[in-house]
Amino acid sequence: MKEMVHFDTDYMEGAHPEVMERLLATNLEQTAGYGSDPYTSRARQLIREACGLSSDVADVHFLVGGTQTNSTVIDGLLRHHEGVIAAETGHINVHESGAIEASGHKVLTLPSHDGKVEAGEVAAYVDAFYRDDTFEHMVAPGMLYISQPTEYGTLYSHRELQALSEVCRSRHFPLYIDGARLAYALASPRNDTSLPELARLADVFYIGGTKCGLLFGEAVVVPRGKALLPHFFPLIKQHGALLAKGRLLGVQWETLFADGLYFRLGAHAVELALRLKAAFAAKGYTPYIDSYTNQQFFHLPNRVIDRLSSVATFELWGPRGEEQSTVRFVTSWATREADVQTLIEAVMSEE
Amino acid sequence: MKEMVHFDTDYMEGAHPEVMERLLATNLEQTAGYGSDPYTSRARQLIREACGLSSDVADVHFLVGGTQTNSTVIDGLLRHHEGVIAAETGHINVHESGAIEASGHKVLTLPSHDGKVEAGEVAAYVDAFYRDDTFEHMVAPGMLYISQPTEYGTLYSHRELQALSEVCRSRHFPLYIDGARLAYALASPRNDTSLPELARLADVFYIGGTKCGLLFGEAVVVPRGKALLPHFFPLIKQHGALLAKGRLLGVQWETLFADGLYFRLGAHAVELALRLKAAFAAKGYTPYIDSYTNQQFFHLPNRVIDRLSSVATFELWGPRGEEQSTVRFVTSWATREADVQTLIEAVMSEE
Amino acid sequence: MKEMVHFDTDYMEGAHPEVMERLLATNLEQTAGYGSDPYTSRARQLIREACGLSSDVADVHFLVGGTQTNSTVIDGLLRHHEGVIAAETGHINVHESGAIEASGHKVLTLPSHDGKVEAGEVAAYVDAFYRDDTFEHMVAPGMLYISQPTEYGTLYSHRELQALSEVCRSRHFPLYIDGARLAYALASPRNDTSLPELARLADVFYIGGTKCGLLFGEAVVVPRGKALLPHFFPLIKQHGALLAKGRLLGVQWETLFADGLYFRLGAHAVELALRLKAAFAAKGYTPYIDSYTNQQFFHLPNRVIDRLSSVATFELWGPRGEEQSTVRFVTSWATREADVQTLIEAVMSEE
Amino acid sequence: MKEMVHFDTDYMEGAHPEVMERLLATNLEQTAGYGSDPYTSRARQLIREACGLSSDVADVHFLVGGTQTNSTVIDGLLRHHEGVIAAETGHINVHESGAIEASGHKVLTLPSHDGKVEAGEVAAYVDAFYRDDTFEHMVAPGMLYISQPTEYGTLYSHRELQALSEVCRSRHFPLYIDGARLAYALASPRNDTSLPELARLADVFYIGGTKCGLLFGEAVVVPRGKALLPHFFPLIKQHGALLAKGRLLGVQWETLFADGLYFRLGAHAVELALRLKAAFAAKGYTPYIDSYTNQQFFHLPNRVIDRLSSVATFELWGPRGEEQSTVRFVTSWATREADVQTLIEAVMSEE
Repeated sequence: MKEMVHFDTDYMEGAHPEVMERLLATNLEQTAGYGSDPYTSRARQLIREACGLSSDVADVHFLVGGTQTNSTVIDGLLRHHEGVIAAETGHINVHESGAIEASGHKVLTLPSHDGKVEAGEVAAYVDAFYRDDTFEHMVAPGMLYISQPTEYGTLYSHRELQALSEVCRSRHFPLYIDGARLAYALASPRNDTSLPELARLADVFYIGGTKCGLLFGEAVVVPRGKALLPHFFPLIKQHGALLAKGRLLGVQWETLFADGLYFRLGAHAVELALRLKAAFAAKGYTPYIDSYTNQQFFHLPNRVIDRLSSVATFELWGPRGEEQSTVRFVTSWATREADVQTLIEAVMSEE
Repeated sequence: MKEMVHFDTDYMEGAHPEVMERLLATNLEQTAGYGSDPYTSRARQLIREACGLSSDVADVHFLVGGTQTNSTVIDGLLRHHEGVIAAETGHINVHESGAIEASGHKVLTLPSHDGKVEAGEVAAYVDAFYRDDTFEHMVAPGMLYISQPTEYGTLYSHRELQALSEVCRSRHFPLYIDGARLAYALASPRNDTSLPELARLADVFYIGGTKCGLLFGEAVVVPRGKALLPHFFPLIKQHGALLAKGRLLGVQWETLFADGLYFRLGAHAVELALRLKAAFAAKGYTPYIDSYTNQQFFHLPNRVIDRLSSVATFELWGPRGEEQSTVRFVTSWATREADVQTLIEAVMSEE
Repeated sequence: MKEMVHFDTDYMEGAHPEVMERLLATNLEQTAGYGSDPYTSRARQLIREACGLSSDVADVHFLVGGTQTNSTVIDGLLRHHEGVIAAETGHINVHESGAIEASGHKVLTLPSHDGKVEAGEVAAYVDAFYRDDTFEHMVAPGMLYISQPTEYGTLYSHRELQALSEVCRSRHFPLYIDGARLAYALASPRNDTSLPELARLADVFYIGGTKCGLLFGEAVVVPRGKALLPHFFPLIKQHGALLAKGRLLGVQWETLFADGLYFRLGAHAVELALRLKAAFAAKGYTPYIDSYTNQQFFHLPNRVIDRLSSVATFELWGPRGEEQSTVRFVTSWATREADVQTLIEAVMSEE
Repeated sequence: MKEMVHFDTDYMEGAHPEVMERLLATNLEQTAGYGSDPYTSRARQLIREACGLSSDVADVHFLVGGTQTNSTVIDGLLRHHEGVIAAETGHINVHESGAIEASGHKVLTLPSHDGKVEAGEVAAYVDAFYRDDTFEHMVAPGMLYISQPTEYGTLYSHRELQALSEVCRSRHFPLYIDGARLAYALASPRNDTSLPELARLADVFYIGGTKCGLLFGEAVVVPRGKALLPHFFPLIKQHGALLAKGRLLGVQWETLFADGLYFRLGAHAVELALRLKAAFAAKGYTPYIDSYTNQQFFHLPNRVIDRLSSVATFELWGPRGEEQSTVRFVTSWATREADVQTLIEAVMSEE
């Protein structure tokens, strides 16, 4: 019996073999805890360098998972009376079980344009807020949250990021970028930005490791460091986000950034995703969202979905429709070319 | 120089003279604090009776203000992983400075239909929630919040309340009604419900005093009492909502419910509001929202607004438009007939 | 049958007759809400003047009750990773149903010396904290809370306040004084400080109205204003502490501070309390705590307590002992001389 | 130059080689996320069996770290008005950066007896609480937190645990045991309890993995399952404690419990710790605390401490004294016999 191929998510495997190898090689070394070890120091420095940041100001913090990172960073950035602006489809608004609210903050939603917010709409929202006579009875916009790529695989262009950054800076609140899948944005053929540019435009962003090559781990980059996020260490601890054996994060991130592995892993996933996209296009299926990253969404006849389900697993995106439904295929750093080929053949053999 | 007449809000004056008189008469009596006095007991009993509730189960709690009441009740009803469903225009979502989120809970918004939610949409939302594979990563709907009348002066009909109540009970979560202006709903010619019906259909509701005859005070009615809201007293204290001299609430509420004053005050305000509405209609101005309670909204030419502003104060509702804008006129238990007449004359004298 | 006299608490009556008179006189006036009325402006100005504060920097905020005031101010002063230092007997640590923790902050307790903390112990605590290698895993001391007078009726001397203020300023965190009964401190013969001195030594303090002449109300004084507590208005709203009819606070406080009523009320209560203390002393009962304010504590034989209970009500302080128990007698602005005389006669007639 | 030997903490290394081997062997397998994989199912079942629990009721949840586990469990167990009783030395009271308070709950402290609370003192505290007239103004005791072994390496005897369990059950609140170092309790020669006994006496407890053989991970055992802790999954997510690649926990725990590795690792550490203790005793140094687990505390002359510091690293426990200071030596599953021997020789060679 043929084995199924899997395109459900980008966190189905463990870590990249080089990462595992380094964890194994260092396993019985003894180091101090909580990130005060030399591996973590070097990983911090490598990430600063990749972001073009000077070492004496910029901070890099390593946390374990995405929801945890979002709730800790947002809690650190907001004052009590402030909320976080996000697209209504933003991960913090939909899929974090209320972690932001549990820390006392409201998510202020703007319309989603294929997962993105528009700079003009952010500006209009904030400006209208302060024109309202009752604004002191309302939750003040205290920061902007975006994800790159978005939850729908779409990308902000450099120009769009620049515009968002300008809106935030001119209104004096920080821009935070959730980069859970950042590797797959940076590797996209449609990408026209870079880590140093993100470090210039964002006030805080995180580079996702869980979905790109690590067992777990997210690297929070704060270009302005303690001037923006003072006392962040005890806040990490308070949020239960401080790993005792912090060097496990250091070793993993060092491996990912020592010689560009992170970027190669992103490129691998995107290339395979676009091959898949091309196959669907060749069969005449237009994508549900025009994504150039590792998540591909299609609106397909249920008949096709059912047939593909006999060779592959993937997610139904929203409820199953009468005749057609939306589905998502995800590739990752670990996706095998052969598996993609299997799926493509199944697609092409549809009549 | 002529004095202006005021239709800004329904909390511009102190308390009804009978209420003041009772406060004065009892002022130097000595009673125990925190609501354990006989005035408070009697007030509780009068409210239970007005709601047709048996005294040995139903609880009545007196709090000071509306935002405080909403955040305390909602905090008492929700479990950690749950949020509160509300119209996107709901007071808790817009005008409480994030008090609900500060207690750790998300407001889950549904579309507003002139301030109201629709039972079918509530049911669809909840049912879709539990059909979603990722529902445990999302904030569970734990209660429904509605306001009667709504923030737009509109009313839920008895049939609509019945339908909402059925949706909540069949899905096993409580229905909570914010009655900040409840007197003005009960007194409306379009009203077809009653306090006993509300006590039957809602799981918790509050009768607003601040906007209807009292210096301050909201009466929270819990028909099922401690079975639904156990340990509510320390929660009131924790929310800073426990009045030391609790009998001030008891005396006021006793006065309001001893012989139907509450209902007479509501009727007064609604009658004057509808007189005003008729005048606008006679001049051919259609209301912005078709309200039969004490708040009246009109979309008027800026020219008319400016002229009326020379005799009356009232609120611009949203931003001023190019040619026309929306305005709100509010009457209350304290509104003088002569003031309404002054405004009507100004309206009628428009060319 | 003779009526009982009451010494249970200092919030058994309503408001001072002059306060009630002013509320009545202004009752039907129409003013804007939330403290933007002229009464509130004048009250703010009178309090600033009484505190020797310049009007263009110092802020005065009016809230409704003590627990509410403490939790709002403390929430405003602390960062996420900080806690508030207090005596283990402090009101915020014992009798506020966890309101401070509900806002996310730990109360860091120091030993109580008859209700007071010692400057040396505060300094030692803070200095040891930062010497501890693991301090970033602990809750940082972010402010100091004291009450004047304390929950035990005791007073900080000017020298003690000066020392506490110096400890706080040299360690860069604010000193906050809970003045729920401040009138009874200022009127004490042992008092050697003043409102202007408190405004110089404290970073925030509140002047209690509920227990000294008002129906309700606490006046928060922030000498450095928005530089220390920015965005405090929405935080008040978020805490459910914003009174819709804010002018009720303005009218009351204006009355209290217009011609020194506040100070006269304090003097009245203290004088009667000391008369009572003298009577007990004359009978040979040494006080449990040597208080010179409106709360008097005695350790008495149960036999005496039972006999006094036939003429007066008062509180048992802690559990009833085998032979002796501690009791508290409280006077207030409203206490009648005749009632004190009745109690004194009962004390003196003990054999 | 000789290398130093390390006795600082029990989380200086990675994971036990068998654990690493299993992680490596399964690394590229594809499984569903969030703990819904077969490894996690089997690990749950192995832990249930080790605890003598029936599979259809008891729940086992895997979280990443200790502070995170404590704050999530405690948040799940407490109602809004309740706090958690703990020894004043308890980890949740001292070293979790206010995580419990950040979730809105107070830690109610009792005296520490070498890290332990006494059943009689817990009972007295709770009973006095409900006898206090003002108890509804105070934080109600809602659960008891203890650690086994304690932060000082001491052990509760079976009889003591039984007594604590009885106090909790008779007062209707749960007993929660923090087992961050549970392996080192179970392996102690002075231990007279077992996992099945803990499962019978506690309402929730966690088995610590981070400090005993795993890269990270804590296993929360809930004998009564959803009846006690319903909706715990979204709470884990809300606390940022849900690992995306949940099977990493499953694989690790399965390895630890498949054939008793967990217990062997505990025995190894305790044996070496007691060898160390014996050496100190032989030199006439009495322990600071009489511990029979993997943490050993001694009060030593500074001269001795300085000399030992040339061969070994270990923690100063509290401030350095004038002549003597307290130090802590910790062994773990990973401690090498040779390292202990090196330290023992250094101790014995003291004059």
